[in-house]
Amino acid sequence: MDQEKLINKITEEVMSRLGNKVKTQNEYSPKTTSKTLSSRAELAGYIDHTLLKPDATKVQFDQLCDEAMQYKFFSVCVNSSWVPYVTKKLRGSGIKTCAVIGFPLGAMDSRSKAFEARNAIDAGADELDMVINVGALKSKDYKLVEEDIRSIKRVCRKNTILKVIIETSLLTDDEKVIVCEICKKVDVDFVKTSTGFNGGGATVADIMLMRRTVGPDMGVKASGGIKDYGQALALIEAGATRLGCGSSIAVMTGAEVKGNY
Amino acid sequence: MDQEKLINKITEEVMSRLGNKVKTQNEYSPKTTSKTLSSRAELAGYIDHTLLKPDATKVQFDQLCDEAMQYKFFSVCVNSSWVPYVTKKLRGSGIKTCAVIGFPLGAMDSRSKAFEARNAIDAGADELDMVINVGALKSKDYKLVEEDIRSIKRVCRKNTILKVIIETSLLTDDEKVIVCEICKKVDVDFVKTSTGFNGGGATVADIMLMRRTVGPDMGVKASGGIKDYGQALALIEAGATRLGCGSSIAVMTGAEVKGNY
Repeated sequence: MDQEKLINKITEEVMSRLGNKVKTQNEYSPKTTSKTLSSRAELAGYIDHTLLKPDATKVQFDQLCDEAMQYKFFSVCVNSSWVPYVTKKLRGSGIKTCAVIGFPLGAMDSRSKAFEARNAIDAGADELDMVINVGALKSKDYKLVEEDIRSIKRVCRKNTILKVIIETSLLTDDEKVIVCEICKKVDVDFVKTSTGFNGGGATVADIMLMRRTVGPDMGVKASGGIKDYGQALALIEAGATRLGCGSSIAVMTGAEVKGNY
Repeated sequence: MDQEKLINKITEEVMSRLGNKVKTQNEYSPKTTSKTLSSRAELAGYIDHTLLKPDATKVQFDQLCDEAMQYKFFSVCVNSSWVPYVTKKLRGSGIKTCAVIGFPLGAMDSRSKAFEARNAIDAGADELDMVINVGALKSKDYKLVEEDIRSIKRVCRKNTILKVIIETSLLTDDEKVIVCEICKKVDVDFVKTSTGFNGGGATVADIMLMRRTVGPDMGVKASGGIKDYGQALALIEAGATRLGCGSSIAVMTGAEVKGNY
């Protein structure tokens, strides 16, 4: 936590000296980011409206889909057992279904992740957010990390979007760079910061590091603990092209929220 | 994989002909209480020695297996990507491999859970600890809860032990009873309290409720936050016939521990 804060502080200092001003959540003023987004409504197109709690009920998934349609969020992001249900609810709305795979530990074997991925696609998922095998990365078994991602990539259809959750909170900066490079090599569509279940969450520093590593053409998704509009804009300014939010309505309307997703 | 299975089969055959009998679950009567625990060493036979953190490394799994062999724990409990590794390490030791399935949210679709289960068995898992679909239970979709469990039961071999994690921390007492009754109906081997990842953990009250609901003949596994010998014995006295411990050594030796698994 202290290290996290320190990294943020140093990053912000460097950014400010470079004149590429990044506002913190509390300092945020909508005017500073008018370049990026012309309106709050535009922000909705960045958001994967997310509900991943194990005890979420049908009523809550109904609400999730209704909100996604009302605010025109990019997608609805759910665990694989809910993919058929939300896909049916969202039919004809233009809102995508996003399924998490091997979630949230990433310690499921690759063949099962690939099976879950294929099954989710068959059930209507347009996008897949898979979790890397963190333990393999920590064991420096980079071949397994790569093969694990590749096994999901292999079952994607031409138009399936594959995002790879690297779980920044568990990684050193070196490990973040290594796995982003693997993702670039495998040619996935997005790298993504966090599950929201293993501590930590999206930080400006991590988004900048990930963006710098994958270059300008790959997607970068910020997720975990995004609570308000200012924070969302800061992450977009830092290089995020998608946001995973459990508190999307608060992010859009400025309402206060407590807790993680 | 087939070679792996063959090696396991031959190993078990050789072990049994040597009269080096591997303890099975059935040798533990659910009635077993502290009265029949004649020593701390006997407690080891109740323990699934558990390591489920996403960032656990090879070195830590080596240590886990070494400890299991030293203390003669009943099994080693790991995520599915680590099943081949620990199975190989434990070969010939008589210590079982236990794999978690759909872990820790239980919100993975049933077909993928069944695939993960079959794959884990093929890779050497003797026991499976699956997580129920909590959201379906909360939505009162009991048919889905039952079918989800049944889909794993269906891929079990004759000697596979199936444990069902009901995640007590997220349930009301009524819901605990309902899902225990479903487990009884499906005829699984154990009901189990907790993943250790969604808050809460094993309590004497929950073990008593679960034991009362499933009757004397089904296994009851207490897991989540078991930190010392006294707590372990209290859970066994309350009706637990197996314990899931990340802090098994502390439970056995009385060393102090902090945090969850």
